[in-house]
Amino acid sequence: MEFVINNVETFLECDKPFKEAKIALFGAPFDSTTSYRPGTRFGSGAIRRESYGIESYSPYQDKDLIDAPVMDCGDLELCFGNTEMALKAIENQTTAIFQAGKLPFMLGGEHLVTLGAFRAAASAYPDINIIHLDAHADLRDEYLGVSWSHACVIRRCWEIIGDGKIWQFGIRSGDREEFAWGKEHVFTNRFNLEGIEETVRSLGDAPVYFTVDLDVLDPSIFPGTGTPEPGGVSFDALRQAVTYVCGHANVVSCDVNELSPHYDASGVSTMVACKLVREMLLAL
Amino acid sequence: MEFVINNVETFLECDKPFKEAKIALFGAPFDSTTSYRPGTRFGSGAIRRESYGIESYSPYQDKDLIDAPVMDCGDLELCFGNTEMALKAIENQTTAIFQAGKLPFMLGGEHLVTLGAFRAAASAYPDINIIHLDAHADLRDEYLGVSWSHACVIRRCWEIIGDGKIWQFGIRSGDREEFAWGKEHVFTNRFNLEGIEETVRSLGDAPVYFTVDLDVLDPSIFPGTGTPEPGGVSFDALRQAVTYVCGHANVVSCDVNELSPHYDASGVSTMVACKLVREMLLAL
Amino acid sequence: MEFVINNVETFLECDKPFKEAKIALFGAPFDSTTSYRPGTRFGSGAIRRESYGIESYSPYQDKDLIDAPVMDCGDLELCFGNTEMALKAIENQTTAIFQAGKLPFMLGGEHLVTLGAFRAAASAYPDINIIHLDAHADLRDEYLGVSWSHACVIRRCWEIIGDGKIWQFGIRSGDREEFAWGKEHVFTNRFNLEGIEETVRSLGDAPVYFTVDLDVLDPSIFPGTGTPEPGGVSFDALRQAVTYVCGHANVVSCDVNELSPHYDASGVSTMVACKLVREMLLAL
Amino acid sequence: MEFVINNVETFLECDKPFKEAKIALFGAPFDSTTSYRPGTRFGSGAIRRESYGIESYSPYQDKDLIDAPVMDCGDLELCFGNTEMALKAIENQTTAIFQAGKLPFMLGGEHLVTLGAFRAAASAYPDINIIHLDAHADLRDEYLGVSWSHACVIRRCWEIIGDGKIWQFGIRSGDREEFAWGKEHVFTNRFNLEGIEETVRSLGDAPVYFTVDLDVLDPSIFPGTGTPEPGGVSFDALRQAVTYVCGHANVVSCDVNELSPHYDASGVSTMVACKLVREMLLAL
Amino acid sequence: MEFVINNVETFLECDKPFKEAKIALFGAPFDSTTSYRPGTRFGSGAIRRESYGIESYSPYQDKDLIDAPVMDCGDLELCFGNTEMALKAIENQTTAIFQAGKLPFMLGGEHLVTLGAFRAAASAYPDINIIHLDAHADLRDEYLGVSWSHACVIRRCWEIIGDGKIWQFGIRSGDREEFAWGKEHVFTNRFNLEGIEETVRSLGDAPVYFTVDLDVLDPSIFPGTGTPEPGGVSFDALRQAVTYVCGHANVVSCDVNELSPHYDASGVSTMVACKLVREMLLAL
Amino acid sequence: MEFVINNVETFLECDKPFKEAKIALFGAPFDSTTSYRPGTRFGSGAIRRESYGIESYSPYQDKDLIDAPVMDCGDLELCFGNTEMALKAIENQTTAIFQAGKLPFMLGGEHLVTLGAFRAAASAYPDINIIHLDAHADLRDEYLGVSWSHACVIRRCWEIIGDGKIWQFGIRSGDREEFAWGKEHVFTNRFNLEGIEETVRSLGDAPVYFTVDLDVLDPSIFPGTGTPEPGGVSFDALRQAVTYVCGHANVVSCDVNELSPHYDASGVSTMVACKLVREMLLAL
Repeated sequence: MEFVINNVETFLECDKPFKEAKIALFGAPFDSTTSYRPGTRFGSGAIRRESYGIESYSPYQDKDLIDAPVMDCGDLELCFGNTEMALKAIENQTTAIFQAGKLPFMLGGEHLVTLGAFRAAASAYPDINIIHLDAHADLRDEYLGVSWSHACVIRRCWEIIGDGKIWQFGIRSGDREEFAWGKEHVFTNRFNLEGIEETVRSLGDAPVYFTVDLDVLDPSIFPGTGTPEPGGVSFDALRQAVTYVCGHANVVSCDVNELSPHYDASGVSTMVACKLVREMLLAL
Repeated sequence: MEFVINNVETFLECDKPFKEAKIALFGAPFDSTTSYRPGTRFGSGAIRRESYGIESYSPYQDKDLIDAPVMDCGDLELCFGNTEMALKAIENQTTAIFQAGKLPFMLGGEHLVTLGAFRAAASAYPDINIIHLDAHADLRDEYLGVSWSHACVIRRCWEIIGDGKIWQFGIRSGDREEFAWGKEHVFTNRFNLEGIEETVRSLGDAPVYFTVDLDVLDPSIFPGTGTPEPGGVSFDALRQAVTYVCGHANVVSCDVNELSPHYDASGVSTMVACKLVREMLLAL
Repeated sequence: MEFVINNVETFLECDKPFKEAKIALFGAPFDSTTSYRPGTRFGSGAIRRESYGIESYSPYQDKDLIDAPVMDCGDLELCFGNTEMALKAIENQTTAIFQAGKLPFMLGGEHLVTLGAFRAAASAYPDINIIHLDAHADLRDEYLGVSWSHACVIRRCWEIIGDGKIWQFGIRSGDREEFAWGKEHVFTNRFNLEGIEETVRSLGDAPVYFTVDLDVLDPSIFPGTGTPEPGGVSFDALRQAVTYVCGHANVVSCDVNELSPHYDASGVSTMVACKLVREMLLAL
Repeated sequence: MEFVINNVETFLECDKPFKEAKIALFGAPFDSTTSYRPGTRFGSGAIRRESYGIESYSPYQDKDLIDAPVMDCGDLELCFGNTEMALKAIENQTTAIFQAGKLPFMLGGEHLVTLGAFRAAASAYPDINIIHLDAHADLRDEYLGVSWSHACVIRRCWEIIGDGKIWQFGIRSGDREEFAWGKEHVFTNRFNLEGIEETVRSLGDAPVYFTVDLDVLDPSIFPGTGTPEPGGVSFDALRQAVTYVCGHANVVSCDVNELSPHYDASGVSTMVACKLVREMLLAL
Repeated sequence: MEFVINNVETFLECDKPFKEAKIALFGAPFDSTTSYRPGTRFGSGAIRRESYGIESYSPYQDKDLIDAPVMDCGDLELCFGNTEMALKAIENQTTAIFQAGKLPFMLGGEHLVTLGAFRAAASAYPDINIIHLDAHADLRDEYLGVSWSHACVIRRCWEIIGDGKIWQFGIRSGDREEFAWGKEHVFTNRFNLEGIEETVRSLGDAPVYFTVDLDVLDPSIFPGTGTPEPGGVSFDALRQAVTYVCGHANVVSCDVNELSPHYDASGVSTMVACKLVREMLLAL
Repeated sequence: MEFVINNVETFLECDKPFKEAKIALFGAPFDSTTSYRPGTRFGSGAIRRESYGIESYSPYQDKDLIDAPVMDCGDLELCFGNTEMALKAIENQTTAIFQAGKLPFMLGGEHLVTLGAFRAAASAYPDINIIHLDAHADLRDEYLGVSWSHACVIRRCWEIIGDGKIWQFGIRSGDREEFAWGKEHVFTNRFNLEGIEETVRSLGDAPVYFTVDLDVLDPSIFPGTGTPEPGGVSFDALRQAVTYVCGHANVVSCDVNELSPHYDASGVSTMVACKLVREMLLAL
C-alpha cells in the first residue's frame, strides 16, 4: 500500500528544488504598526493556501506555473511588538536569497515589511530604483510618534536612496504634508497607473525594487485590506501593469502586501492576490 | 500628570465651536419603515466612528477638513415605531440649525428622514428645488398601505413643492406606476448621473435641497445598504457629481443616507460614505 | 374573519397557473462535484426567496413580471453523493416540461446540472446549439478522476452534439489542455462577451440551449460563487447580453447557475442573480 | 414523465390539509418598534426554511411531526412603519383561526406581535392567563414616547386582563421601574425557569396564552436575537419547560418570537428555534 | 546569512520523523454526501493550520506534544463526486499506516470517511469494536436513495462487524426507524456520555475503533458543523471522555470529523477541535 | 427651536462631572504584541458604544448606573508599533487619575496594557496585590524574543512586586515552564474561580489591583477574543466573582481587557463585556 505524505505547503506549483529555482518566494507575516485594522499577518498564509483554487495556467500570458522555476520557502516566524527584530529577520532572509543567486519575492504582511527587504536590495544594488503601486503615499516622516510605521515606509526607503529614485502610481490618500513633500523628492502619479510603461522604459536596465500594496486596487474588488480606499484601479489595470513591470523592467526584488484576509468575507480579495502573484511570477 | 479626557465623538475634524461653524452635521438614526433589510439606524454612527480611518485631506480638491467650519452635533435620539414623532424631531433640529444661520447636513438613517429635514427647508426656502440621487424613484403614493414610507419620500416632498422642482439622477428601480407618474411631474434621468452639471447650471442661484441615497452607487462598491440594486454608478462618478453640486449649486441643506453597516462585512461601504461626506463638506 | 394562507413560494410573480404558463422555472439544488467551495445547492432557494426584494417591473425593458406567463415549480429534491441519480431527475423534469409544451428554465446548483437538462433538450432538439457564458472553459475530459464534474460539463455536452455547436463567452480560466482542445472543437471568446450578438444573428432560428454560469461576472459584483475569478464582465454587460440572447435567439431551454449564497455576506450576489433572471424571463 | 411541482413551503411536515389540522401555524414578520438591533422580521421565514435541517422525530418525546395535525399558513404580509395596521392584521388572523376551531401558533417577529394575537385570545377566552418566558420584563408603560413597543408588550396585555394573570419566568433585564411595578401586578421569577411546573399545576384547566421570547435562552446557544442578555437558561431547560407547559397546561394560543437570523452567523439560533417549535407542536 | 525554509505544515509539534513516529495523522477532506450544509472538506486543513494558536502543553494531563511520537502526513487528495474512489483512497492510506506499524489518526471530512478507515481497521483487527460519539445515530439504511451517505455510515460499519460491537454515546437525533433498528443491533446511550467509562472497562483489551463526530458537542461551543444539534455535551465532558477512551481502551485507529470551518465565524469550533485532538494524541 | 448637541460618548450613564466622579473609566486601545489574532484595539470603543444596548439597572444587585459616580474619559490615543510609548501613556493617565483622588478603571486593549496601569498603581500602593482572572498564565519570561508581550504581562508585574502577591484564577493554558515557574512564585487556581472569595477575605484591607482578562470565560459565551480557550467559566460564575471582588476587596485600580469585537459576529461578546463592566462599576 502507498503511504501518502503530503505536508509541504507551497504557493501553487512553486515547489521546485533549491538548485533549479531562480525565484524564492517567502512570507513576512507582520502587522504590528498597522494603525487602522490589523490582520495582514494572515495575508501570506492565505495566499499560499488558497492558491490551489486558481489554475496554474494563465490564458493572459499563455504560460504555466508548472514550468516556472520558483520555490516557496514558507513564512518567516516574526515576533509581534518588536519592529526592529522583525525587519532584521526580513533583511537577513532577503540577503540570503540574493547570496544564493535567486530573486526574492516577498508576500506581506503590512507594507512596513518592504523596508526590511529593501535594505538588503539597496545593499546589493546601490543604484536601485523603486516602483511603488499603492493607494497611500506612505511618505510621512513619523506617524503618531513612530518612524518605523507602515505609513512611513517609502520615506524610510527614500532616506536610503535619495531623490529621483522612487516612482509612485495610484496614490489617492495621504495628508497634506506628504503630498507637498512628495512633490520635491519622488515621482507621484495620482489616482491611476498611467505612465507606468513609460517609466519602465525610461529606467532601462537599472535595477528595480517593485513593491505592490494591493490597496491600490479599488475596494470593490479588493475589500480585504486594512485601509480600503474607494476610487482605486481595476483588477485588469493592475494585472496589466504588474505583468508589464515584471516582464520589461530589471526587477531584482519584489513584494506584494497588505492582504488582510479576515476582512475578506467572500474570499475574493485572496483570489485577486493569488492571481496577481501568478501573473508576476510568470512574467518575471 | 496630564488627565486625558477624550470623549467627544465627531466626524473627522468636525469639532469646530458653535460660533465658528457654518455647517452643522447631525445624524438621524431611524429605519422603521424600511421594507426589505433594516439597519440604516446604525449608519450615521458608523460614518462618524469610522471617519478616523480616512485622511482629512482630499487630494481631489486639495482641501483639508482641518480648515472646514463644521461642527458635528451627534445623533438625534429618535423613537422606533412612531414615524411622525421621528420626522418632527428631525424637522425641529433642521429648523433650529437654519435659525442659527448654519447649513444643516444630515446623515441617515433610511431615506424617509429626508422628509423631516425637507419640511424645514421648504418652510425656510419656499422656492426650493430638490436634486435627488438614488437607485429608486421613491415616488409611490403609498407602500403596503403606508404613506410615510422610505419608498414614498420624494412623492411626499413633491406634495410640498409641486411639479418641475425635483431632479432625479441614477434611478434604476421602481414599479411601473412610479415611472409613469414621474414622467408627468419630475425630471428623471435613469441609470446614471448624466446631465447633472447642466441641471446645476440651469438652477443658477435657486435654493437647492440635495439628497443623496447612497444606493445610487453600484453594490460592488456599496453593498452595505438595505436594497442593493446592481447596475449603479461608480464611486468616482458619484464623487465628482456631489463635488460639483456642492461646489456650484446653492445648496441650503443636504443629506446622505441609506448606509446599513451590518450588511457591510468588509467595512468598505462605510469608508465610501465617509469619503463622500468629506468631499461634500469640503466643496460646500 | 379572513383566514390567510400564504405558503406557496415562487420567484417574484411567477405564480401563473399551469395552463397559462409558457415558461416553467425549477431549481436543481446540487453541488456534490464542486471542487473548491461548495454551497451552490442553496442557490435556487436564495434566488426564489430574495426575489421579493426587487421590483417586478424592469425599466430596462419596460416590461413587468406581473404579465409574464411563468410558473415556478419549486426545487427538485436531489440526493447528494450520487451524481447520476441527480442528473437523471433533472433530465426527467426537463423532458416533462418539454412534453407539456413549455420552456424549461432551470436555476442551479453547480454547473454540472446543465448536463441533465441538456440531455433532455438535445433529445427534443437534435440540432441544438449551446451558448455558454462562463469564467471557466469547463472542457476538461476528467477532473481528479471524475468525468461527471462541474469542470467537465461542456465537454460532456460536446460529446452529445459534436464540433461547431458550442459558443463560449467570457472564458478566462482553465488549464492549458482545455484551451488547446477548445480551439479545435468549440468557439471560445476569451475574457469578455464581445461577438455574442453576431453569434446570435448567425444562429438564426436554430434551437439554442442557453447556459449562464454567473461566475462570468466580475467577483466585485458577484462574490457569492464557488470559484470567483477576478477580471470578469460587468453587470450591465451581462444584463445586455442575456437580454439580447433571450430576446433574439431561439432559446428552447436555459439555465442560470453557480450562485453560492453562503459566500455572499452582503446578499448582493443573490440580488444580481434575481435581476438577471427577471430580465431573462421578460425577454424570453 | 413526471412533472414535479414542489413550491409549497411549510414548517417540516406541517402540511396537513385544512380539515385535519388542529393547529394553524403562521408567521408575523414585523420588527418596526425594535429599539436595538432589528431583523426579527426574517425570523419566521428562517424557521420555516431551515426546519428541513432537523428530524421530524423527537427522541425526547418519542413522537413524530409526520403524525401531528398541523398546517402551516405561511407568513402574513405586514407593513413596516404602521404598528396598528400590523397588530390588526395579526389579531384578525388569530381570530379567524379560533373561529375555524384551531389553535393559533404564531412565529414572530418582534415580541410586540404577541399583542395582536393576545387581543384575539382574550376576546375568545376572557379568563385567559399568560405564561411568559423572556429575558426582559417588557412591562414599561412607554418606551421613548411610544406605548406600542416591544418593551411594553406585556404591560399592554396586562391592561386587558389585569392583576394576577401573568406569570413571568427567566426575567433578567429591565429598568428599575419595571421591576418595581411588576412586583405589584404580575408574578415574576427572575433569572431562571424554576417554579413553572408548579404554576402550570396551579392554573389547572384555565386557558393559557403561552408566549416564548427566545432571548430567555443564554446567548451562547441563541446569539441570533435583537437584544442578547448573557446569563440565560440552557436549551435543555427551555426544552423541558415548553414541553411541560404545552403538554400539561390548557394552552389555547401560543407564540415563539425574537429570532433575528441576520445576527446568527452560524445558523445555530435558527436550529434552536426549529427544535423548540417541533417540541411544542408535538406536546400540544 | 541563514536561508529560512519553513514550508512543512503539520499539526502542532507533530513533525516527528517516520521512524520515531508511532501515530500517523492524516486528513480526509471529503464532504460530497453531506445533505444539509457542506464544507467539512475544509476541516482537516483548518485544524492543522490553527493548531499553532493553542499550546502544545496540556495542563489537564501534564503532558506536551513536543514529546509525542506523532507525524502528520498532511491531507489526502480526494475527488469530489465519486464516493467510492474517495473511500478507497482512505482505506489504502489506513492500511499502509497499519502496515508501517503505526496507529492511524484521521481528521475528516464528513463522517462517511470513517467507513474507509474502518474497512482497513476491520480487516486488520477482525474482532474490532466501535466506540462512536455523535449527535446523530447514523444508522439509516439509505438516505434519499444513497447508501454511502454520512447518515448511514455506522449502519455500513455494522454490516461489516454485526451486532453487539458498536457503542454509541450522545445520540440525540435520527428518524424513528433508526432508533427502533438501533435498539436491536447496537448499544445507544442517548443525550450524553454517561456509561462510557464502564463501556471501556467492559471491552478490556479488545481492539477499538474510536470515531468522534464533533457535533456530539453542544453547538454553543461547536457551531461550526454541518448539522448543529442543540442539547449536546459540554467541552469538558467530551474532553474527559476522549481522554479516558484514548488512555484506557485499546484504541487501534481513530478519527475526529465534521468540523465545517466556514460556519465557524469566530474560529472557536476550530480551537475546540484542535484542543481535543491534542488531548487525544497525548492520551494515546 | 431646540438645537440638539449630543456628541459626547460615554459608557452607559457614566457621564458624571469631574467633581462628583469617584471612578474614572478610560480606554487603552492597543494590541501590537498580540501573537495570534489582533483586534483588541477595538475593544474599549465597542464596549462604550454598545453599552446603550443594556439596561443601567442591575436586577442582580438592585443598583443603577444612573446613581453611580463614574466619569468616562474616553480612549487614550496610543501609537501602534512602539510598546514603551503606549505603556508610558497608560501609566501617566493612571497616575493622573490617582492624583485626582479617583479610582482608575481601564478598558483594554490586549492584556499588556495592564503593565502600564499596574506600574502607576504599584507606585501609589507599594504593598499592592494582584487578583488575576484569565485563561492564560501570562507568566512567560519572553515570547518570541520579546519581553513586553501580552504573554508575559503578569511576569513583568511580578518583577515589580515579587512573590506571594499574585492570585490567579481560571488558568487553563500556558507552556510547561510557565506552570512550573508559577508554582514557585504565584498562587494559581487552575480551570475555575474556586477559592476567590477566600482569597479576598485573606487579603483583608490590603490594596488590590484587579485585572480581568475576559478570555477566562468559556468561548461559547465569549468568542470575541484573540485566543479563545474552550473549557472556561460561565458568565454567571464570572459575574458573581467580579461582583464579590469589587464589593469586598480593597480594589484601588482595575481593568477589563481582551475583547476583540471583529471576531464577535453576533455581538454577544461585547454585551457580555458591557454587563460585567456594569456589575463591577455598581459593586465598587
